[in-house]
Amino acid sequence: MSYFPETIGKIINIMKKIQGIGRKSAERIVFSLMKMSDEDVEELGESIKKLKSELKFCSICGNITDKDVCDICLSDKRDNSKICVVEQVQNLMTIERTGVYKGKYFVLHGVLSPIRGIGPDELSIEKLKKIVKERGVKEIIVATNPTVEGEATAMFIKNEFKDMNTKITRLAVGLPAGGDIDFSDSFTISLAFEKRDEI
Amino acid sequence: MSYFPETIGKIINIMKKIQGIGRKSAERIVFSLMKMSDEDVEELGESIKKLKSELKFCSICGNITDKDVCDICLSDKRDNSKICVVEQVQNLMTIERTGVYKGKYFVLHGVLSPIRGIGPDELSIEKLKKIVKERGVKEIIVATNPTVEGEATAMFIKNEFKDMNTKITRLAVGLPAGGDIDFSDSFTISLAFEKRDEI
Repeated sequence: MSYFPETIGKIINIMKKIQGIGRKSAERIVFSLMKMSDEDVEELGESIKKLKSELKFCSICGNITDKDVCDICLSDKRDNSKICVVEQVQNLMTIERTGVYKGKYFVLHGVLSPIRGIGPDELSIEKLKKIVKERGVKEIIVATNPTVEGEATAMFIKNEFKDMNTKITRLAVGLPAGGDIDFSDSFTISLAFEKRDEI
Repeated sequence: MSYFPETIGKIINIMKKIQGIGRKSAERIVFSLMKMSDEDVEELGESIKKLKSELKFCSICGNITDKDVCDICLSDKRDNSKICVVEQVQNLMTIERTGVYKGKYFVLHGVLSPIRGIGPDELSIEKLKKIVKERGVKEIIVATNPTVEGEATAMFIKNEFKDMNTKITRLAVGLPAGGDIDFSDSFTISLAFEKRDEI
């Protein structure tokens, strides 16, 4: 890369560490930035610089926040009797955008994955138990992804809370609304059959 | 997004302006950054901040550089009699990584595309003509992509230089080395037949 300025190499090498971004994507991002307005690029750089010093994970639920406790945990408009357990902060943001859920959250920051060395201890289940007990949570909605690892994590949580007086629910799995049966995988179709409802 | 810190929204909104990055990719990038080392994130932010002020496009060939003229144009080890015309700086970087080409470059920063309003005037062909004349370039290697737009641009360049004493060549199109016929599209296969070589 001796023919190219050092700044480019630096950006590309750091961006390559992001999951799902390879050299080509990193290059594409750099050249897109070169063609954007000075203000946007300056602001992006400044925001990224501040990212780690300004932001942290909420000490209660694991959401991203610029305070010690996030706005969702602090809010008295959110239903304290429900807690929705998600794998990642992105999942929480996706659910928030739907506006459909008005309870609290708990972010696992992972799923059980023996391959990646993520066992029960890494998922801070003890912390979740403490919150559920203290708040007297009535329902834990396990919103891990409908994947093998997400299912295993849901079953693990169900088992951990079996002696507590708390309802454990799981988001419904089936054909996506507005979707096409022809484009659904066979596992989804078989689950849709299994969980079929009377109409 | 009122439940989330402003910094996140800022980063996501600017990243969404990059071609090929949507809200989900932008979110994924932000959360990957949150899990990276403080030093990496700080350096990435700082490098992006400096990007537009430190870097520009080479005034001769359009490559990216931190000087007025890029190191490839300045180098006396590169063959001045050949000029390789590419669509984007990324293409130049990809070719440089192979180490196979030792001439100079010219970056069009686009291809002819009536749909996107890119006509001959946007491709600085006059500048290319001036360079070819001044340097007495013997060969123009048109390395635009083997797409409809890339081909149209190559034909346009061939036509523009038809009265000059310069050889115009085009990178070979055919089956990718190490590739599988079954995974090649029919257009590539038909070109591979058309351009077949005696062995």
